[in-house]
Parts: sequence; structure tokens; C-alpha cells
Amino acid sequence: MVNDRLTTTLAALADPTRRAILARLCTGETTVTELSKPFDMSLPAISKHLKVLEHAGLIARGREAQWRPCRLEASPLKEVAEWVEHYRRFWEDTFDRLDEYLTQLKSKERKHGRRHRRRRT
Amino acid sequence: MVNDRLTTTLAALADPTRRAILARLCTGETTVTELSKPFDMSLPAISKHLKVLEHAGLIARGREAQWRPCRLEASPLKEVAEWVEHYRRFWEDTFDRLDEYLTQLKSKERKHGRRHRRRRT
Repeated sequence: MVNDRLTTTLAALADPTRRAILARLCTGETTVTELSKPFDMSLPAISKHLKVLEHAGLIARGREAQWRPCRLEASPLKEVAEWVEHYRRFWEDTFDRLDEYLTQLKSKERKHGRRHRRRRT
Repeated sequence: MVNDRLTTTLAALADPTRRAILARLCTGETTVTELSKPFDMSLPAISKHLKVLEHAGLIARGREAQWRPCRLEASPLKEVAEWVEHYRRFWEDTFDRLDEYLTQLKSKERKHGRRHRRRRT
């Protein structure tokens, strides 16, 4: 099967350092040196992550040879949001069922509490 | 950095076959044999994908040795939706800017059209 854009995006996002880089870029464009500061990583290691993000279209880089600032490109994330949205009813179902279960549990506890109090009086 | 749950989920989703399996499970629980039908893949290949999905908590499987039906477990997808939601303003910004650009373009075209009509009359 071909490596579609959504697969490329998800693979690029499946790394905590790359997600942290995207989070950092939310505050504005920045240089590789600045980006690498919070990470205990070499510049080549950071550059490798940036290449993955750039290939996925999640960042864009300036053209200046010396100072190539990175900026966030969020449009591939829209596709992720649209894809995952199809499953919302399933996770909401799960939480609804859990909520229902907890309500039943509380109701049982209340009944039990009343019986317990009646027995004591 | 540790392989957190979101990373495991995203890595499991970064494969078109695995996403197709999840889509298939939206219609209800099913066996591995049934699941493998639309794919040109061996049962062991499908089983490998199912193991990745199960490890990520995206599917659960029945306990019967012979007939282990798979069902969708959507709660890890809620985390993906919540993570991606932080970036909404950025992709909406992109589309807003594009929309603004197109509006300007149309407005220029209209002005140009009017000038063009005036010149012809």
C-alpha cells in the first residue's frame, strides 16, 4: 500500500521530541540552535528530526543558508483531526458507559447506605 | 525519552492497513479471518498488525483460543484528538489567510472586470 500523506504525518508525530519541537514552534519561528536548547541532543540529531517534520510538511524552513529558521505548518494536522473525529462516537460511548456504570454504582451505594442506616435506627 | 502512550498510539496509526482494520471494526467485532478478507495479506501479516493495535490498546480481543474476535477500543484516540486540538488555531489561521487572499483576488478581478467593461462601453 502506498505511503499516503496521513501515514507520513502520523509517523512524524509518533515521536515525543518531534511533538515537543512542534509545541515550541507554536510561539513563533526559530533557529535550529534555539530549538535544540531544551533537548539533551546533538545538533545533527535535532536536524534529523527536523528533516522528518519537513518531509511531512509539518514545518517549513527559511532559505538563508546560515540561518534557516523553522516555522510550524499546521495543515497536515487538520487531516489528523478529521480522521480521528470519525471515531469520536466510539470513545464517547466508552465514557458514557463508564459514566452509566458509576451512576449505577453510586445509586447502589446510596441504597445500601439507607438500608444500613435503617438497620441502625 | 520514554515511549509514552501517545507515541505508541500514533505509531500504531501510522499504517494504512492498521487504520483500515480500525475502520472495519467500527461496524462491530469480528474474527481475524473476516478482517483479513479485504486485504491481500497472509493471516500472519494481519496478526502482526493486530498485535501492534492490541499493544497500543486500540483493539481488544476475546479470550476464546479458536475464535478470538477483535473489537475497537477507541479511548486512545481521544488522546490523539485532544493533542491535535491544540493546533487548531494554527491550521484555521492558514485557511483564514488563504481565504483572505482569495477574497482579495476576487475583489481585484471584479475591479479589473469593471474597468474592462467601462473601457469597452
